[in-house]
Amino acid sequence: MNASVLQTLTDLLGKDGLLVDPDVTGSYRRDMMPLAPHGSPLAVALPRDAAQVAAVVKACAAAKVPIVPRGAGSGLSGAANAIDGCVVLVTTRLNEIVEVDPDNRLAVVQPGVVNLDLRGAVEKHGLFYPPDPSSYDWCTIGGNLSTNAGGLCCVKYGVTTDSVLGLEVVLADGEVLRTGRRTVKGVAGYDLTKLFVGSEGTLGVITQATLALRPLPQAPGTLVAAFSSVAAAGAAVSRVVREGIVPSLMEIMDATSIEAVEAHLKTELGAGKGCAALLLCQSDSGGEQARRELGAIEQVCQDSGADLVHSTFDLAEGQMLLAARRAVLMALEEYGTWMTDDVCVPRTRIADLISGCERISAETGLRVAVVGHAGDGNMHPTIIYDPTSEREFALATRAFNDILAVGLSLGGTVTGEHGIGKIKREWLEREIGPVGLRTHRAIKAALDPENLFNPGSMFSMT
Amino acid sequence: MNASVLQTLTDLLGKDGLLVDPDVTGSYRRDMMPLAPHGSPLAVALPRDAAQVAAVVKACAAAKVPIVPRGAGSGLSGAANAIDGCVVLVTTRLNEIVEVDPDNRLAVVQPGVVNLDLRGAVEKHGLFYPPDPSSYDWCTIGGNLSTNAGGLCCVKYGVTTDSVLGLEVVLADGEVLRTGRRTVKGVAGYDLTKLFVGSEGTLGVITQATLALRPLPQAPGTLVAAFSSVAAAGAAVSRVVREGIVPSLMEIMDATSIEAVEAHLKTELGAGKGCAALLLCQSDSGGEQARRELGAIEQVCQDSGADLVHSTFDLAEGQMLLAARRAVLMALEEYGTWMTDDVCVPRTRIADLISGCERISAETGLRVAVVGHAGDGNMHPTIIYDPTSEREFALATRAFNDILAVGLSLGGTVTGEHGIGKIKREWLEREIGPVGLRTHRAIKAALDPENLFNPGSMFSMT
Repeated sequence: MNASVLQTLTDLLGKDGLLVDPDVTGSYRRDMMPLAPHGSPLAVALPRDAAQVAAVVKACAAAKVPIVPRGAGSGLSGAANAIDGCVVLVTTRLNEIVEVDPDNRLAVVQPGVVNLDLRGAVEKHGLFYPPDPSSYDWCTIGGNLSTNAGGLCCVKYGVTTDSVLGLEVVLADGEVLRTGRRTVKGVAGYDLTKLFVGSEGTLGVITQATLALRPLPQAPGTLVAAFSSVAAAGAAVSRVVREGIVPSLMEIMDATSIEAVEAHLKTELGAGKGCAALLLCQSDSGGEQARRELGAIEQVCQDSGADLVHSTFDLAEGQMLLAARRAVLMALEEYGTWMTDDVCVPRTRIADLISGCERISAETGLRVAVVGHAGDGNMHPTIIYDPTSEREFALATRAFNDILAVGLSLGGTVTGEHGIGKIKREWLEREIGPVGLRTHRAIKAALDPENLFNPGSMFSMT
Repeated sequence: MNASVLQTLTDLLGKDGLLVDPDVTGSYRRDMMPLAPHGSPLAVALPRDAAQVAAVVKACAAAKVPIVPRGAGSGLSGAANAIDGCVVLVTTRLNEIVEVDPDNRLAVVQPGVVNLDLRGAVEKHGLFYPPDPSSYDWCTIGGNLSTNAGGLCCVKYGVTTDSVLGLEVVLADGEVLRTGRRTVKGVAGYDLTKLFVGSEGTLGVITQATLALRPLPQAPGTLVAAFSSVAAAGAAVSRVVREGIVPSLMEIMDATSIEAVEAHLKTELGAGKGCAALLLCQSDSGGEQARRELGAIEQVCQDSGADLVHSTFDLAEGQMLLAARRAVLMALEEYGTWMTDDVCVPRTRIADLISGCERISAETGLRVAVVGHAGDGNMHPTIIYDPTSEREFALATRAFNDILAVGLSLGGTVTGEHGIGKIKREWLEREIGPVGLRTHRAIKAALDPENLFNPGSMFSMT
């Protein structure tokens, strides 16, 4: 049976479109989350267009071979991890920017387009595609859609789903569904577009997307504020929200992150001794408006007890500060292997989450760095461990889960932007409860009755 | 059987909670769209809380009596219209604003809260709930959620779904589903929240919603521009979009609407003789920013050949102009009965839509006024007819459908914000195609296997 489906797929895709050598397919076994389970694929399919995707789906459905859709593999929840005997369907060859329509501020793209390439292509038209996950220079739009990716932009511009007008999706029977529209508004029928966005490859394979674009913002001004207590930094975030200031970026780094970045980049972030937290904010409103926004944030930081506040409209300096924030994970690698969490809490509870992480760090004896998108409460506590030590791996796993429990207890969610995947299945159940789980299963069974797509990911059917 | 379910419901809700007198229930037969079919309800249920809603659902499910959920009845698609023998479940008594949390910029409300009341309650905290359908002074949040209502705000602030964080929904088995969260980001599981928003009462009864709020914008500046051709006004809209200007409001009125409003309000809108279209724009960015935005729009209008452009930061004058726009439907009533369409087209095709409406007006001999949300291409061509003339009613129905066909042919959707309801079922099928329809049916069957909620509305199951 397997030999027969492999032959069918080779006939469809050509020899270079179907990888079967275990030495090659091995690199498609998992994404960037080491904790999530992963198996060995039967094959890796690299279709070139939607028709080939549909043909692969039909062949796999007929042979009852499960399909795991995958983009670049930058995910952090194991959603694209292979299961034994599956076909990993990689969409990276569907990488055409089909259309940029500046008059209607939209783009039509295939799923394999890299986020950064789309950003560049629309920027030429004075337009902006907001979602900017940390992996934006190599992750694909298809993966962004499947995980409803976020990034640093979300505090002002929302997440991926907020930028999607319509999708083309290959369903489990190989038929092509078109959802949504090219208009900015539209309520004809159920919002299937937003149902597929964030469904992590469990309902179909996205083969095209119509994306809403925004006017390119002004070059940003940047503010950095250093606090000697996490509580003071948290209070500043709450007050920015309360006062109705909407920065275009508002990130937090705790002492462990700052220290790691300073060592890694061999630079001073100006945090100084005794700095417990840095806030990094930007305004892209331009001119007087940006000065007013950053001025208001500066005042809030001072009132909240910041030891130092510095604003700059020098682009290079702003980019340097942002690069420091983006370098945290790489910097932490100097201490060991990292495992990053992704809890999102109400914005008033950020300081509580960070103290929870400090407690868990003390309990496990592991370093836990906290960085995150303070402006929307989406924190990435990152645990450092020695991967060669079974004890440390077990402790890291415990810390990972304890942090999720703290997030939930603060009224948060176990995933702000990375997704459930194969790493947080039991946490999904804990968060959404039995009625929520039953509803998920009903929808999955309705759209994918044979459980063809990514079976066992996000939730199990039994 | 019916007697027994009526007894059960009376026991549950009390005599004042269950209306059965046909003279009384008659006023719950239909919403504001005269064209849509409507039947006679068995009873009208007015539960007071979510537990009573769940009990009504269970009782009706057991007796196989269909339920039509309803808010204030301001809808324009017949989605809340009764079918023969149904229970109309009215949510207006669940009218509590449960919580306003200014620190996290959210509100928790019951579905019966009137849109205007929520606006007022959050404004006290310096906060803003954007969705503002024309009926905002009497429509309810529950209806807004069920139709994914829009309004004048959408060009800058999006539609209802963009302001919803989570829902509480009574499902067809009477169980209570909680979707979403209180955090601004979150990707745990499918986006059930946005699936229920806009589902027009076909999947469950919303009993509570957690809504995201925004900082209260600045008092707006207002611009009005008069054009002697619709094409010139359309070109101005396209250029505003292309130049990346985002006004907080951008409305268009054609000559018929202007004339009607001027006669009705006994005022001059400053359009002058030969005016074919007025554009009405606002910026709520405040201060210099607002002046810059309106200045840029002014320039675009002049370049596009406007005969007159006038900007004002006088609040009373701005409100007067906005009131004129909001008065169009009422003003048109002086000519006869109106029937309003709701097509949304790509923003570059607005002028084409208006010329299409002029053609249809000439063909049918009926007056067709076009007003709409130019900034997002959502137009409301409004047909005037004599309801006592069968011939005119037939012509109006033909015009209504012809306008939908024009909208679709321009790459638009048959409903930008009013919904499909019981008036555009065949048009939904035409817009989404057989795979789309099959997907809708599969989801409906998964969540409401006995077809309890609003059967036959939006689409039929066979």
